[in-house]
Amino acid sequence: MSMQRREFLLSSTAMAAGLAATSDIQGQTIPKPKRQAALKLSSQLRVIPGKSLDKKLATMKEWGFDAFELPRNIVGQEKMYEEAAAKSGLAMSAVCWGSHDGALVSEDPTRRKECMAAIKEVLASAGQLKSTGVIYVPAFNGQTKLRNIEIRKVLTDTFPALGEYAVSVGSRILFEPLNRKEAFFLRILADAASICRDIASPGVQMMGDFYHMAIEETSDMGAFISAGAYLHHVHLASRIRVLPGQDDRQFVDGFRGLKLIGFQEYCSFECGVKGDRSVEIPKSLAFLRRQWAEA
Amino acid sequence: MSMQRREFLLSSTAMAAGLAATSDIQGQTIPKPKRQAALKLSSQLRVIPGKSLDKKLATMKEWGFDAFELPRNIVGQEKMYEEAAAKSGLAMSAVCWGSHDGALVSEDPTRRKECMAAIKEVLASAGQLKSTGVIYVPAFNGQTKLRNIEIRKVLTDTFPALGEYAVSVGSRILFEPLNRKEAFFLRILADAASICRDIASPGVQMMGDFYHMAIEETSDMGAFISAGAYLHHVHLASRIRVLPGQDDRQFVDGFRGLKLIGFQEYCSFECGVKGDRSVEIPKSLAFLRRQWAEA
Repeated sequence: MSMQRREFLLSSTAMAAGLAATSDIQGQTIPKPKRQAALKLSSQLRVIPGKSLDKKLATMKEWGFDAFELPRNIVGQEKMYEEAAAKSGLAMSAVCWGSHDGALVSEDPTRRKECMAAIKEVLASAGQLKSTGVIYVPAFNGQTKLRNIEIRKVLTDTFPALGEYAVSVGSRILFEPLNRKEAFFLRILADAASICRDIASPGVQMMGDFYHMAIEETSDMGAFISAGAYLHHVHLASRIRVLPGQDDRQFVDGFRGLKLIGFQEYCSFECGVKGDRSVEIPKSLAFLRRQWAEA
Repeated sequence: MSMQRREFLLSSTAMAAGLAATSDIQGQTIPKPKRQAALKLSSQLRVIPGKSLDKKLATMKEWGFDAFELPRNIVGQEKMYEEAAAKSGLAMSAVCWGSHDGALVSEDPTRRKECMAAIKEVLASAGQLKSTGVIYVPAFNGQTKLRNIEIRKVLTDTFPALGEYAVSVGSRILFEPLNRKEAFFLRILADAASICRDIASPGVQMMGDFYHMAIEETSDMGAFISAGAYLHHVHLASRIRVLPGQDDRQFVDGFRGLKLIGFQEYCSFECGVKGDRSVEIPKSLAFLRRQWAEA
């Protein structure tokens, strides 16, 4: 058992032993989170109205967002984002990077090596921007010939070193579980957390997305509890991937999970909008704040 | 979306909306379970001392067990088990059946059909014995050439009908997630629950095993919350697969999850023993009751 895993287990055991203050539900003790959770809101830029980056960020600030999510192509554009963020007063959340054609888990080890250069570049940029980390999908369906058990082994073999690099540049990789139609390899938050635990690097962590979770997870709360301290970013979208509040998708159960794990990172819109963005986005923010209060 | 899935979601939503009475933790609401959970203890027979079935069951009753777990070969032996159970005052928990060489998810549809007869036979016996259900592993590693995404499709295509049969004979299938070294296809409780949800039959449910969970899950509580109402059986074993309490494996966090979902089915020993069984098994039962009280 690796040292990190042992520490993780010990800390779970400490929680289990009720060393943290506990409250009582029907004769049952639930550990209090070590940190008080906070709902910090972010969005991808695509969905925000405005003709320039500055205008989009000014609008986001006015609406009460805390941060904006960075697009995949940030390398060489660090100064632009840094200045715009400073001007707006918003922080930068995660970088929505993707799978790089699944090359890091390709059946061809040469392709894996080539892709390492690209992910290292974006990790360095993300670190410079003090972003939450780089969102990474190991492989969309069809992007590698490896079987799932083999993909997992490539990750646990090669990502400890990549995680060390990420830490050295002040960033981290964030595994993103999607849904089976897009990426069968990684769909369940508990599975992503298990991979993070085995890689055992603070530079390799994970996120969750309410849209995919509605398809794959039976319990948002259970999923976030399993993600635990590995969770560093959340994507917000409704069941049909429009704004939260625009269909029946509820967020209270998931927010309950985020509160139980003391989540303090960003929840960020990755979705479309039905209707007028200037009306609907503030409405969605208010809806989310109500759901957080209920949780 | 199937009716059953919709009902499941609606019931989650009802819980999320706090329609059940809730308690408050640090400004946070946690739904109370609909049913009060209970720790009901069972064991496989192999580990119990005694030269005959009757002697084993009498000892189990004396030690405070509630039920015994049935071995795979119960077909044709229903009368023997029924009489022994009646004499002992113990109930029968699950039937530990296995994968039948992975035939139900074979790449060869003929093998799948052949295996259906075998599983139907054991389901009928299990129903006759009022057992919890038939423990089923889709495939151990190497037992099918299908990829994981294909195995899942075979299950969601063929198990709704099998579930209907199970219900007709008063039984159910119980998917058992193992660990990646034994069965990579199914390792995570949330994943098993997701398959159950998609199959959407009361005749197709699941279980969890503390031994495998220590390898695969990052949170016992999160895993059981995700398993939710699909969970109908639990296997008990320590980290090195001996009796609970014989190593550092803790059960409080998992038991907390079982309490949150109002679990009322059996927790059953599937493990070896270090030392004298007549001393160690009662000690383990006392350890588990203490852990349950702490949870």
